[in-house]
Amino acid sequence: VRPPSSPSEGLFDGLFARGAVAEQVSDRAWLQAMLDVEAALARAAASVGLVPEAAAEAITARCDAGNFDLAELGREAATTGTPVPALVRALTEQLPDDAAAHVHRGATSQDILDTASMLVARRALGPLLEDLDGAAEAAARLAEANRGTLVAGRTLLQQALPTTFGLKAAAWLVGLEESRALLADVRGRTLAVQLGGAVGTLASLGEDGLDVASALARELELAEPTVPWHTVRVRPAVLAAALGTTAGVCAKIARDVILLAQTEVGEARPAAVGGSSTLPHKRNPVGAVLAVACAERTPGLVATMLAAMAQEHERGAGGWHAEWETLRDLLRLTGSAAVSLRETLEGLEVDAGRARENLDGLLMAESVATALTPALGRLAAHDLVERSVGHAIEGGRSLRDVLLETPEVARELGEDGLDAALDPQRYLGVAEALVDRALALRRA
Amino acid sequence: VRPPSSPSEGLFDGLFARGAVAEQVSDRAWLQAMLDVEAALARAAASVGLVPEAAAEAITARCDAGNFDLAELGREAATTGTPVPALVRALTEQLPDDAAAHVHRGATSQDILDTASMLVARRALGPLLEDLDGAAEAAARLAEANRGTLVAGRTLLQQALPTTFGLKAAAWLVGLEESRALLADVRGRTLAVQLGGAVGTLASLGEDGLDVASALARELELAEPTVPWHTVRVRPAVLAAALGTTAGVCAKIARDVILLAQTEVGEARPAAVGGSSTLPHKRNPVGAVLAVACAERTPGLVATMLAAMAQEHERGAGGWHAEWETLRDLLRLTGSAAVSLRETLEGLEVDAGRARENLDGLLMAESVATALTPALGRLAAHDLVERSVGHAIEGGRSLRDVLLETPEVARELGEDGLDAALDPQRYLGVAEALVDRALALRRA
Amino acid sequence: VRPPSSPSEGLFDGLFARGAVAEQVSDRAWLQAMLDVEAALARAAASVGLVPEAAAEAITARCDAGNFDLAELGREAATTGTPVPALVRALTEQLPDDAAAHVHRGATSQDILDTASMLVARRALGPLLEDLDGAAEAAARLAEANRGTLVAGRTLLQQALPTTFGLKAAAWLVGLEESRALLADVRGRTLAVQLGGAVGTLASLGEDGLDVASALARELELAEPTVPWHTVRVRPAVLAAALGTTAGVCAKIARDVILLAQTEVGEARPAAVGGSSTLPHKRNPVGAVLAVACAERTPGLVATMLAAMAQEHERGAGGWHAEWETLRDLLRLTGSAAVSLRETLEGLEVDAGRARENLDGLLMAESVATALTPALGRLAAHDLVERSVGHAIEGGRSLRDVLLETPEVARELGEDGLDAALDPQRYLGVAEALVDRALALRRA
Amino acid sequence: VRPPSSPSEGLFDGLFARGAVAEQVSDRAWLQAMLDVEAALARAAASVGLVPEAAAEAITARCDAGNFDLAELGREAATTGTPVPALVRALTEQLPDDAAAHVHRGATSQDILDTASMLVARRALGPLLEDLDGAAEAAARLAEANRGTLVAGRTLLQQALPTTFGLKAAAWLVGLEESRALLADVRGRTLAVQLGGAVGTLASLGEDGLDVASALARELELAEPTVPWHTVRVRPAVLAAALGTTAGVCAKIARDVILLAQTEVGEARPAAVGGSSTLPHKRNPVGAVLAVACAERTPGLVATMLAAMAQEHERGAGGWHAEWETLRDLLRLTGSAAVSLRETLEGLEVDAGRARENLDGLLMAESVATALTPALGRLAAHDLVERSVGHAIEGGRSLRDVLLETPEVARELGEDGLDAALDPQRYLGVAEALVDRALALRRA
Repeated sequence: VRPPSSPSEGLFDGLFARGAVAEQVSDRAWLQAMLDVEAALARAAASVGLVPEAAAEAITARCDAGNFDLAELGREAATTGTPVPALVRALTEQLPDDAAAHVHRGATSQDILDTASMLVARRALGPLLEDLDGAAEAAARLAEANRGTLVAGRTLLQQALPTTFGLKAAAWLVGLEESRALLADVRGRTLAVQLGGAVGTLASLGEDGLDVASALARELELAEPTVPWHTVRVRPAVLAAALGTTAGVCAKIARDVILLAQTEVGEARPAAVGGSSTLPHKRNPVGAVLAVACAERTPGLVATMLAAMAQEHERGAGGWHAEWETLRDLLRLTGSAAVSLRETLEGLEVDAGRARENLDGLLMAESVATALTPALGRLAAHDLVERSVGHAIEGGRSLRDVLLETPEVARELGEDGLDAALDPQRYLGVAEALVDRALALRRA
Repeated sequence: VRPPSSPSEGLFDGLFARGAVAEQVSDRAWLQAMLDVEAALARAAASVGLVPEAAAEAITARCDAGNFDLAELGREAATTGTPVPALVRALTEQLPDDAAAHVHRGATSQDILDTASMLVARRALGPLLEDLDGAAEAAARLAEANRGTLVAGRTLLQQALPTTFGLKAAAWLVGLEESRALLADVRGRTLAVQLGGAVGTLASLGEDGLDVASALARELELAEPTVPWHTVRVRPAVLAAALGTTAGVCAKIARDVILLAQTEVGEARPAAVGGSSTLPHKRNPVGAVLAVACAERTPGLVATMLAAMAQEHERGAGGWHAEWETLRDLLRLTGSAAVSLRETLEGLEVDAGRARENLDGLLMAESVATALTPALGRLAAHDLVERSVGHAIEGGRSLRDVLLETPEVARELGEDGLDAALDPQRYLGVAEALVDRALALRRA
Repeated sequence: VRPPSSPSEGLFDGLFARGAVAEQVSDRAWLQAMLDVEAALARAAASVGLVPEAAAEAITARCDAGNFDLAELGREAATTGTPVPALVRALTEQLPDDAAAHVHRGATSQDILDTASMLVARRALGPLLEDLDGAAEAAARLAEANRGTLVAGRTLLQQALPTTFGLKAAAWLVGLEESRALLADVRGRTLAVQLGGAVGTLASLGEDGLDVASALARELELAEPTVPWHTVRVRPAVLAAALGTTAGVCAKIARDVILLAQTEVGEARPAAVGGSSTLPHKRNPVGAVLAVACAERTPGLVATMLAAMAQEHERGAGGWHAEWETLRDLLRLTGSAAVSLRETLEGLEVDAGRARENLDGLLMAESVATALTPALGRLAAHDLVERSVGHAIEGGRSLRDVLLETPEVARELGEDGLDAALDPQRYLGVAEALVDRALALRRA
Repeated sequence: VRPPSSPSEGLFDGLFARGAVAEQVSDRAWLQAMLDVEAALARAAASVGLVPEAAAEAITARCDAGNFDLAELGREAATTGTPVPALVRALTEQLPDDAAAHVHRGATSQDILDTASMLVARRALGPLLEDLDGAAEAAARLAEANRGTLVAGRTLLQQALPTTFGLKAAAWLVGLEESRALLADVRGRTLAVQLGGAVGTLASLGEDGLDVASALARELELAEPTVPWHTVRVRPAVLAAALGTTAGVCAKIARDVILLAQTEVGEARPAAVGGSSTLPHKRNPVGAVLAVACAERTPGLVATMLAAMAQEHERGAGGWHAEWETLRDLLRLTGSAAVSLRETLEGLEVDAGRARENLDGLLMAESVATALTPALGRLAAHDLVERSVGHAIEGGRSLRDVLLETPEVARELGEDGLDAALDPQRYLGVAEALVDRALALRRA
């Protein structure tokens, strides 16, 4: 499919309409998809003998978005509630009578728009999956390169225990791989042709309805549904949910980057930094911020898609119409989040030295408790260390010193045992094995 | 303010970007609003002597959207995360040095964008309030003209008791008036200037910060806040909520119209009917459907605005950015819902005859129970009539006949009393007085 | 698993906490699930030799919710932000020292709560899938029994073309089957154990971390993830989305039932009708209304789950906590929607006579246009019939009479041809074949 | 009103059902509110002579929640879709015949439930406003005590310019005051009685309908609406939006606290710190985390309330029912957020020394640019400093040294001028005046 031209043109398009996904959901791309459906329908009807081959060819030849006045179609849509009737009329008028007679055979407006939306989604999922793949590759490289890079693990934004930057990146990687799997599954199985005629019976195609529907699915490389899904909106809902989940993964990673890039933390620095209109020294993590911003908008859009599912009888009176721009925004924003995240991860610099310096003196408390557990039991060991931490904070002393004075520690661990327990490098558990598992998933 | 040119250009703009509100939230309108803020800022700074008057005049003179390449600004926005730095640079470059030195004095990007968003909202609320006023006027006329038009009141979509079309329209009217009051209050009190400099201290304006902020508010006819609200987002949230509530009112009315226009009900017929690409006989309530569609999308957008409120420190890292297009969509969709609803109500034809015919034979059951209550008590009367309704349905008989055979009815009401109790015209309560109250609210 | 006792106790539980799903998400069920995780963890640790078998058995023996004061645990949760620490302490205190020392080995609070939430979900999905299966079976029976029942197909709530009640029910059936497939897939593949220790490294389990995690997954019959998913929330999001989609399908069907049950339509009547506190004659479609009500609440909850995905570093500071009650509500409401829908469909009576009577005189317009298409071309045929419909409405005449006077109709169809084209029974397309396909999907 | 007993009883109630608001939205509080409406209705009807005074007194005397089996009412609700009919029946049965006959006069179930929901809201807003007031007072004290406490202002989580902790707290304070004003306005003007009878005509009250409605409003101290608002849901929507906005303000403040309390920042430490089940040293900002968690859940709930507005005809078929638990959750969660935030702010310790240490060396870049602006013009000054910042970072040198070598700086500022420009204390703009404005708003 020829990529529809859609240069970034809006005031916010550089932020929220990034990359090839944005092009694939442009007005022109939608128009082209609608035309592709009309053309494929003609060919499908021709394949069962309902329409002359020559007519199908003539129709196909005219079905180029460049032949139509998009703005005019948009204005006329207000009359009927969709842009399809005006498009059908315009297409028919451009054809000689013998072909014109066969335009839009058996279809209703919803068939064209729904199938076009599936086409648009499939075309947009291509670059989206690529950008997620790029982000995943970048995460994999970060995981590999930093498998031994010590960094504070933080719970509720408090330092908790040491971990590695490699494991952090491995978790990101797995999230991205899981998102890719969700979207790939949607692309392969959920996106389906919709052809039912006005009420789902395909009545105007007589006996040939099912054959035309099958042929249409083959023409467009979309799945063929059990029955027309005009008002059973599982497919758009599943697509929307997979996009929302993907955006959520992007937001998780991007937020981590923003937090790591804080002036006071400085453990990671995105390359794609943004300046400021007033602050000459600012090095803003713009890409990560944009990914978060895009993802912040997707949950509400997914909710709209789900709320719109309760469509009445054989065509929804509003719920259906509510889907179109919403689905487009979901694709556009998830796509932009993926682009921004990919750029962020590809350019991310890890500052291992800063990460090491940041490790808090109390971070190894659990490790000491673990070392004491065989002797004291888990809870008693936990409580003993908790008390020591309290003493250290109140007294402004190091935890090591306080612990050394504790009889149980002296008895059970001794100074060497305590120092071993306080060494973050020795308390990384299976971090490295988990990195391997994540990389294996990626390489699979 | 010169209305920015924004002809409907998108494939779905005839549906979801209707009327003057859509123009007021276009990319160009946003750009103009940002320029208006820069110009007003220069004049405000000049008013306290921080900037030469001539420089302020020169800056103001260049602040016309026509002087800038909107698409280029949009593309450059990706670098910094907002279109403001590129705009400031472009504006500065267009000015002679003595004026150029005074562009953007004291402001940060967020000041420009936030204040511009308030300007955009104020300009969009104008036509939105007009369309709501038009819809309210149409509802008032329907209420007045149909104050005696008998129609079935329906609960859970079952006929329940008689009411009047006048009272239905009066309830719509009150909802529209309440929405108008909400939005007018927002326009008058919530929309405020934002000026704080990079972190809210207005540091680069020295001692004059507060005076410049006051002057800016006066220049732009926006409220002056107690302190800069850069990351305390009550104002955008209140605006969004008022829009969402207004859209909800539009949806309620539009859904009623769709239900009344059903083939099997036929009590109201919208004039603005839409054809169909396949069905020659269809008379679709397109305007009402579009109003519902717009409103179906607003709750998710309001949720996004509320979720975005938790903005970090002195500038949100994503939450802020998530607001811009969301707020624009909220204005655009609520505005389009209002336009579609106004057209629907202005052209609505009520079929009083059909409404009378539709009245169900069991509809007066409560009236009979009410008539029996003084003698039997409320619950016993209710239960007696409930049993009679059951007998009528099971036996395929009229409720009147069944009731006449009931000793209590015969004794307490007699045939005349029963017929009076079964006359819907006599069981309209205070419907007419309520119509008067609604009209009085409107006329006030 | 012994079903936790959770009699319906709240004021609204009869409406929104219906069936066995509600029991499986009760406070007590959550507590039991948390205890089941602690017990399984002890056995898993024992299986790799980290914990004595006797200790694991002793721990398992105490892990019964009946041994704990749920309200007390709830109150203590405020101190730490989760109910887990208080539970661990209470469990430890109930055990002899040699077992007590081995409670909660290697786990952090999040491990217990996340894995418990997966257990709760798996247990709740059982009855939920059963209720969906019951609803699907009822839909299948309706489809089969009404495969020839003529009914108006309605688009935008206007009669459009004839269809069959069988095809309507077949579309419902397919939606329910698709929902079941989604949820079954989630149950089989998405619900996974979470075990990572404080920051995901499983540090306190030393070398045995991965083996313990595998054993825990086997113990609980949950999937084993690639890496701990503490802050990569794809699994809860996918679960939430599948529930939201299922609720949306329930809402679609329930809304159709409500519309079919309207006094003026009367084509279907739910058996589970509700009375009214004031209206003796009301026959409300209460079950369908409740299904719609439950489903109306799920999109916002799914949005919350998606928005909560951006969890910071190794434990979310709020996002994680926001999931617990939200997920419970999603299970409870989707479960209640399924129960209400199942009851509605199982008791649904179709009034074929009323459906036939309701067919509008203009309904066959497309059929006539289709019959004229071979001779006139699609668009010309459409326009001719559209004009005739206009004449019929304006003149108060039957469409048949108007058409008979039209030269093209007389010439191309004649009276017999026209009558054939106007016979709804002859214009049902592939409705019956589609019913067969849906039933085949069900029976597969 | 006697506070209904509702001890915290659920597993998560210590987190999400905190304080007196939770008690005011308990099942028992709802039941009591419904009974209060029934009692007030009897008295209102008595006040216009429709019901004997003695009957009204007898009814009032029985209207105590303790007289009813809440769980039984909940179970019976499934039959009719609301708990009201069973309640009316139970109340009637408890009364002597002469009083029983006058129960529920003129009302429909929706009247009782809607008015009760308004009562519940008013009662819950009392303690909620108190907690917000407490939080505001704590913020005011922090603002006052820290009006000169230097702290880094941060944009996109990067240090940007110096500000004061006082101004940060002042912004929080203003947000809390604005929320209080919103909710107080809702309590005073939005919460209204609903009385319309089955379809809004008050038919069963004959001529006295409006007088009874007025009397009922007086009895319950709720506003009297223009017309019944049974399906025009502006009031619940406005209430929900004000709650959602308030929760958003709480989240903003709580997130700031969490960020300030980070191990690597340490500028503020909440007193109410939480321990950990595994980490003895953790000092978690539990209260702030809980406030964020509560607020994270409100946007979706507000969306549900807005989406539910499109209620059909004279009683919504699902939308209405969706409001009840949603509104309750909104009150409960916003109330819990306020309690958690209040505790957090009341116990917040500011570490001024740590804040001073944290100030980044590049933070004063804008100040230098501002000092250079009179001589160089704003943009040239900005660019010069931006370049110097780049040199400093790349060369690992101090910004001061780099600037001193710059000819323009040497010429225009000199060493003393540069040091003055680099002194954060001198670059706080109007921070102190803004603190005064915020405190004045508070004290007003």
